[in-house]
Amino acid sequence: KRTGVPEIIYGEGKTAEQIIGIVEAMLEKQNNILVTRVDSQKAKEVRKSLPQLHYDEVSEMLLWEKNPVAKTIGKIAIVTAGTSDLKIAEEAAVTAEAFGNSVVRIYDVGVAGIHRLFARIDEIRAAQVVIVIAGMEGALASVVGGLVSSPVIAVPTSVGYGTAFNGMAALLTMLNSCATGITVVNIDNGFGAGYSASKINHLAEAAK
Amino acid sequence: KRTGVPEIIYGEGKTAEQIIGIVEAMLEKQNNILVTRVDSQKAKEVRKSLPQLHYDEVSEMLLWEKNPVAKTIGKIAIVTAGTSDLKIAEEAAVTAEAFGNSVVRIYDVGVAGIHRLFARIDEIRAAQVVIVIAGMEGALASVVGGLVSSPVIAVPTSVGYGTAFNGMAALLTMLNSCATGITVVNIDNGFGAGYSASKINHLAEAAK
Amino acid sequence: KRTGVPEIIYGEGKTAEQIIGIVEAMLEKQNNILVTRVDSQKAKEVRKSLPQLHYDEVSEMLLWEKNPVAKTIGKIAIVTAGTSDLKIAEEAAVTAEAFGNSVVRIYDVGVAGIHRLFARIDEIRAAQVVIVIAGMEGALASVVGGLVSSPVIAVPTSVGYGTAFNGMAALLTMLNSCATGITVVNIDNGFGAGYSASKINHLAEAAK
Amino acid sequence: KRTGVPEIIYGEGKTAEQIIGIVEAMLEKQNNILVTRVDSQKAKEVRKSLPQLHYDEVSEMLLWEKNPVAKTIGKIAIVTAGTSDLKIAEEAAVTAEAFGNSVVRIYDVGVAGIHRLFARIDEIRAAQVVIVIAGMEGALASVVGGLVSSPVIAVPTSVGYGTAFNGMAALLTMLNSCATGITVVNIDNGFGAGYSASKINHLAEAAK
Amino acid sequence: KRTGVPEIIYGEGKTAEQIIGIVEAMLEKQNNILVTRVDSQKAKEVRKSLPQLHYDEVSEMLLWEKNPVAKTIGKIAIVTAGTSDLKIAEEAAVTAEAFGNSVVRIYDVGVAGIHRLFARIDEIRAAQVVIVIAGMEGALASVVGGLVSSPVIAVPTSVGYGTAFNGMAALLTMLNSCATGITVVNIDNGFGAGYSASKINHLAEAAK
Amino acid sequence: KRTGVPEIIYGEGKTAEQIIGIVEAMLEKQNNILVTRVDSQKAKEVRKSLPQLHYDEVSEMLLWEKNPVAKTIGKIAIVTAGTSDLKIAEEAAVTAEAFGNSVVRIYDVGVAGIHRLFARIDEIRAAQVVIVIAGMEGALASVVGGLVSSPVIAVPTSVGYGTAFNGMAALLTMLNSCATGITVVNIDNGFGAGYSASKINHLAEAAK
Amino acid sequence: KRTGVPEIIYGEGKTAEQIIGIVEAMLEKQNNILVTRVDSQKAKEVRKSLPQLHYDEVSEMLLWEKNPVAKTIGKIAIVTAGTSDLKIAEEAAVTAEAFGNSVVRIYDVGVAGIHRLFARIDEIRAAQVVIVIAGMEGALASVVGGLVSSPVIAVPTSVGYGTAFNGMAALLTMLNSCATGITVVNIDNGFGAGYSASKINHLAEAAK
Amino acid sequence: KRTGVPEIIYGEGKTAEQIIGIVEAMLEKQNNILVTRVDSQKAKEVRKSLPQLHYDEVSEMLLWEKNPVAKTIGKIAIVTAGTSDLKIAEEAAVTAEAFGNSVVRIYDVGVAGIHRLFARIDEIRAAQVVIVIAGMEGALASVVGGLVSSPVIAVPTSVGYGTAFNGMAALLTMLNSCATGITVVNIDNGFGAGYSASKINHLAEAAK
Ligand SMILES: Nc1ncnc2c1ncn2[C@@H]1O[C@H](COP(=O)(O)O)[C@@H](O)[C@H]1O
Ligand SMILES: Nc1ncnc2c1ncn2[C@@H]1O[C@H](COP(=O)(O)O)[C@@H](O)[C@H]1O
Ligand SMILES: Nc1ncnc2c1ncn2[C@@H]1O[C@H](COP(=O)(O)O)[C@@H](O)[C@H]1O
Ligand SMILES: Nc1ncnc2c1ncn2[C@@H]1O[C@H](COP(=O)(O)O)[C@@H](O)[C@H]1O
Ligand SMILES: [Mg+2]
Ligand SMILES: [Mg+2]
Ligand SMILES: [Mg+2]
Ligand SMILES: [Mg+2]
Ligand SMILES: [Mg+2]
Ligand SMILES: [Mg+2]
Ligand SMILES: [Mg+2]
Ligand SMILES: [Mg+2]
Repeated sequence: KRTGVPEIIYGEGKTAEQIIGIVEAMLEKQNNILVTRVDSQKAKEVRKSLPQLHYDEVSEMLLWEKNPVAKTIGKIAIVTAGTSDLKIAEEAAVTAEAFGNSVVRIYDVGVAGIHRLFARIDEIRAAQVVIVIAGMEGALASVVGGLVSSPVIAVPTSVGYGTAFNGMAALLTMLNSCATGITVVNIDNGFGAGYSASKINHLAEAAK
Repeated sequence: KRTGVPEIIYGEGKTAEQIIGIVEAMLEKQNNILVTRVDSQKAKEVRKSLPQLHYDEVSEMLLWEKNPVAKTIGKIAIVTAGTSDLKIAEEAAVTAEAFGNSVVRIYDVGVAGIHRLFARIDEIRAAQVVIVIAGMEGALASVVGGLVSSPVIAVPTSVGYGTAFNGMAALLTMLNSCATGITVVNIDNGFGAGYSASKINHLAEAAK
Repeated sequence: KRTGVPEIIYGEGKTAEQIIGIVEAMLEKQNNILVTRVDSQKAKEVRKSLPQLHYDEVSEMLLWEKNPVAKTIGKIAIVTAGTSDLKIAEEAAVTAEAFGNSVVRIYDVGVAGIHRLFARIDEIRAAQVVIVIAGMEGALASVVGGLVSSPVIAVPTSVGYGTAFNGMAALLTMLNSCATGITVVNIDNGFGAGYSASKINHLAEAAK
Repeated sequence: KRTGVPEIIYGEGKTAEQIIGIVEAMLEKQNNILVTRVDSQKAKEVRKSLPQLHYDEVSEMLLWEKNPVAKTIGKIAIVTAGTSDLKIAEEAAVTAEAFGNSVVRIYDVGVAGIHRLFARIDEIRAAQVVIVIAGMEGALASVVGGLVSSPVIAVPTSVGYGTAFNGMAALLTMLNSCATGITVVNIDNGFGAGYSASKINHLAEAAK
Repeated sequence: KRTGVPEIIYGEGKTAEQIIGIVEAMLEKQNNILVTRVDSQKAKEVRKSLPQLHYDEVSEMLLWEKNPVAKTIGKIAIVTAGTSDLKIAEEAAVTAEAFGNSVVRIYDVGVAGIHRLFARIDEIRAAQVVIVIAGMEGALASVVGGLVSSPVIAVPTSVGYGTAFNGMAALLTMLNSCATGITVVNIDNGFGAGYSASKINHLAEAAK
Repeated sequence: KRTGVPEIIYGEGKTAEQIIGIVEAMLEKQNNILVTRVDSQKAKEVRKSLPQLHYDEVSEMLLWEKNPVAKTIGKIAIVTAGTSDLKIAEEAAVTAEAFGNSVVRIYDVGVAGIHRLFARIDEIRAAQVVIVIAGMEGALASVVGGLVSSPVIAVPTSVGYGTAFNGMAALLTMLNSCATGITVVNIDNGFGAGYSASKINHLAEAAK
Repeated sequence: KRTGVPEIIYGEGKTAEQIIGIVEAMLEKQNNILVTRVDSQKAKEVRKSLPQLHYDEVSEMLLWEKNPVAKTIGKIAIVTAGTSDLKIAEEAAVTAEAFGNSVVRIYDVGVAGIHRLFARIDEIRAAQVVIVIAGMEGALASVVGGLVSSPVIAVPTSVGYGTAFNGMAALLTMLNSCATGITVVNIDNGFGAGYSASKINHLAEAAK
Repeated sequence: KRTGVPEIIYGEGKTAEQIIGIVEAMLEKQNNILVTRVDSQKAKEVRKSLPQLHYDEVSEMLLWEKNPVAKTIGKIAIVTAGTSDLKIAEEAAVTAEAFGNSVVRIYDVGVAGIHRLFARIDEIRAAQVVIVIAGMEGALASVVGGLVSSPVIAVPTSVGYGTAFNGMAALLTMLNSCATGITVVNIDNGFGAGYSASKINHLAEAAK
């Protein structure tokens, strides 16, 4: 069995006390622990009792790496459209890394300036799995999907205003993409994308 | 005054008799006449009384060109994602031509195979105005919008299934495009795009 | 290069003539050909000109296997909730097989009678990738997602009435699943699920 | 007549003064009193004037039990998917108890880890009525509905993010459940579920 | 065990052949059989092979009562707003009867002429369970819910036009009813209401 | 000309300064002035400069009655379902009075306790026009509409939670009412209802 | 009492037999009879048994005027945007006339050519009540509402395509009109508008 | 090349630090800089480091005009319905000016008082391009569109309440306008309208 595979706690809607309780119940276990969607205020409270947990400000996750996790040779590429997608991208990246994947970050390559995407397309193509993260109209998923042959997981983000409808426009784009080989997760679900990408990457890794 | 500018009749929801009545009331006038959204059955009935009207099978429009219209030097580029957008594209094209514009058709260059778009990008860039027509996720509008500097009018089409929601996915994409310089018309409104593009092209033409 | 990988044509919204034209343009090529979403009437017309194409009544696809495709050792499990999901399930299955995958069909195991699912859970767990197909409320995806550790691709179907909203209820279920490791495709998009599963399965296959 | 049946006041959108006024108008009556949806701040203000009212922090209800209510022999089982559904679950539980029902709480048995549900299925099956409370995709209702033969009342909660749409995803799941014998109440309406379950349980109780 | 409890087949989206196959597989069993949502054309085809099945034109259900079912003393009242709700009402009624319940039909007592409802309110109050069926704005559910003390199951129907949105207006009314003790099933789900009402009525019946 | 007819200012989205500016520009005129949707904070600021304006705390309107307005003999009845509809009801009432109408308030007579409505039905029937104000499911409009023969204006309010969708459920109820003679205004638009009712009442008044 | 006031039957969703049954049950009564929403096929069947009923092809209503109804002096103006609104306009007009109102029809004066509206504005202003009927974006209601001082009832129609959403765009326009004094009925509800206008007109008529 | 054309930064969702970073990276370049959607608090922080940036309070934009931009002879008319549309109107105006356009502001001419519009129609007609900005029901776009022959860009704003749905009602109005020659941008997207209008105006300007 791969050791170090983290136990996941969904932090949203849980109080600091509830999170502490759940983590303490796992103290004995050897699993690493990852708590998602913890705002900085709540993280501070949790860390008063459990200073072992590292807080990642960008992805808003708490991580306790009791055992270091070996990284895959094959890579997960995480591609974002804009600066505002950073939090979700890092949620995906930190999740994937916590599950033992090598991650390559290719940020801020949205289709409005498509040359930035082409400048880094070889890195993207070299990955075993690609995660595309975009808000507003989410067109980046279709363009990347058309350019790579590896499986693509698309994450719509709630970036945008008006008819972006908090990520709905990007979600519909990704579900209806004319490029094939794209599957989709919930709006702002960087965690889910990182987790699924990890599963695929580990299947591929076994082949190396 | 430019002669030959057509009078427009919206054919949907009108009976053949109503259309005939409206056209006959204009018999004296010198205007050309364009009737939009006339299915082939209704067109046949109208043409029994008014064989002067030419029926365009693809765009489903009736056109009576009493006076030939001079064409602009500057061009309107009409760019489509797929074969299924043809009807709407031709509605835009025939409208634009009826209003005296030179039109260049660049069809079937959707982002799933983006090299096809790049192969024709110079023709698109040479146009004064660009109309982008796409269904499904409508990402083509964003990509074209990012590559050209002329005004872009985007037309979402009802092509697709499931969460394409009869054009809603493409509409949202176009309204939220991260590329600037894009304005949008109603789903399947090829006529409206052709008409607005014509207005812009004639403004530009005066400059030549 | 794997030979025999099929070229895909999206049949919906295309006339029989258009499909014939596209297929004939590929006559020389060695690719297999797969045409999706072709109703039986249209298939008949296409086959008048191109009797080489085999029509699969259930999945409503046309397939021309010029070169037989070797099948993977690893399997894709296709799991459905009810009888009414058959068409979409077969679209996924035939697609996956056309791309050289071994497929195991586990149909009609919806959660209303969860013992039917448990009776076959070992077969599902043995697969490299699992496709879950369900309409109505789509709860099967969550239950399977919780029971297997391989990547799960969920396909909502338009089966149901009233607030099923033509697949929207099942789609939302799948996007919000409390089980992790699930990614989602468009409503009724059996093809897309089969295609993405194939990509993942081939990554895994390299490892054998 | 059963004495002790509580009078209900809907607290949301009422000021502390309005609630005090309504309660004081009932001072003479023998009815118990239950005020729903009172946040802790408002509860504090009400209790300054009416310290007899007990405030339940979790369910956010005020209760004045002037007369103790005898409990039924038959039980109402309250089953939840996750920790975040606690508030709504307690609203249902406290309501049911206030109306004289024995309640058994089976919390945190969501389908992502279905063994936790099976571990407690006998307790659930022993109840006369089952209330299932779940947010996100709400699949728990279908699974429980398929496993028990008593009437099931499902409560969607606003737990989740993105396309959970504040409980809409869970509501649709519950309305479209492939399991039969499930009826549904409004999102987050723990009170309504507890109240209806009480009615059914008392009908059954008469039989003992 | 109560004998005669029918086995249910959901007829929609199944071919006549599929229905025949499922029924024939149960030939040996002693269960009665009820097939829901079978239009008259399909029913005719099924009855060619299986003339034992009785077809109920109004509710569009096929019923094979191999063993007569004893009826309860306690009654289920089925209350409808208008003539157009008849099909759904009968689906509920026939289902309830097939499961051994006495049913009292109180049809066409919508709130536009509230005296008609009051004229029959005693019959409604005498029932153990009340099913309220209404389309358009569905206000009847609230009025009945306020007048009776037994559990009420509300069924929104797709009767109406424009903003009735195929039953959505009535559904929302029923979910938000200011009267307590109402639970709701899917739009047009007369079967589900009859089934759940039966469960409750049988619980109550044990008491007699 | 009727003197005293107030000039209306829509206060929402305007700063205190903007409101002051508009009112001061009318200082010379003889019109009364009514400013709608002014929260108490903004009202305070406005009244620092313009203490002549009276602020009505409940309806959140500012009123400057430079000239007293004679009241009609005929009455507008304002009927509400619950306590939470008070603000909107008073917006309608104060508007109607400012336009010279006699108003009769019949509050808190929702259909959950329909006897309260019947207790006051004669007063409602005696009015020339009836305004019905209700949130949640809004069924009161249908019941009143069925009982009176005068024109009814229905106002949905944003009272409720979950699927009440901020007044949408009540709006749909009112638009689809099976009772005839009901017209509808925007959610929470007490002002509009009072204004339209005033128009009708004055038409009727001329007859006295 | 005014004699001749018609009894109303809602024809949609009723069979010819049901309509005949209801009409025959009223044979003895002196009331006129109006049946709404009867398509021509159904009307034909009804008239086989009841040739006394007159069928109005445009409004699709059956009318039996047993007693002639005196017409009011005051008028109801019915204003439409386009030719396609004719059916709904006539439904309103025939209803209003059946209830004894004088009607003035002002059709095809949509805001795209606002001079046509101004050409007839005096006729509209002379009416006691104005009904505005429009599809697509429904802007006519706002323009008329701003120009007249009588009560305005707005009817959205399902004319349009794409984002017209079968009348939803026009409905929202009318509910949010910046002009005051407008109330709204359901999409395509010409009958309801005619009925409510009649109530108001008769209140005003008493004054003459 | 036109010098002085500004570089655009989308400020929303970016921290002050991120904005400062991006601007500093352009210090060397000769481009003017325009940062959109910067609230006053964030602007203050940015200006601490970069006092060269001018902050426009109304449009909430930061502008650094390193090189003055020559203005066009032809004009862009910006037309608004009400006072509350001011912010979006100024976003369009400041954008257009920053790109070298002469702008004429025609504010507060909504259709409720259509004479205000007619009083300024000549100024509007004199422009090369017209931007119409309106919230609530957005009818102004249709009226202006019917009165002018130049291209019209419509901007729906989130002004309004209830069924205005944060700009959705106005958006639908504009997309479905019966007047031709109107294209639409996202809700509250004053920037996009100003930018597209600038493109068109510069095409026309070349002609002078
Ligand atoms: N950010 C997230 N989004 C969606 N699911 C999550 C997230 N974080 C954790 N989960 C899942 O939530 C479940 C844990 O929920 P809980 O028991 O409430 O902590 C696990 O199945 C996780 O995989
Ligand atoms: N296909 C179309 N989509 C949108 N508007 C159209 C279309 N065809 C014509 N129109 C517009 O409809 C108006 C004519 O409507 P009508 O008077 O009903 O023929 C004119 O303003 C046309 O510009
Ligand atoms: N009209 C109906 N609406 C909702 N569920 C139904 C209906 N008819 C049958 N069912 C349920 O559908 C399931 C049978 O589905 P199937 O195996 O496809 O026949 C059973 O759980 C039934 O209780
Ligand atoms: N609460 C309200 N809801 C809807 N419309 C209003 C409201 N208050 C004022 N109005 C209308 O808004 C217009 C005045 O808008 P303004 O010029 O912005 O003050 C007038 O036509 C009023 O009738
Ligand atoms: Mg690809
Ligand atoms: Mg561009
Ligand atoms: Mg799993
Ligand atoms: Mg069950
Ligand atoms: Mg009750
Ligand atoms: Mg009435
Ligand atoms: Mg007016
Ligand atoms: Mg125009």
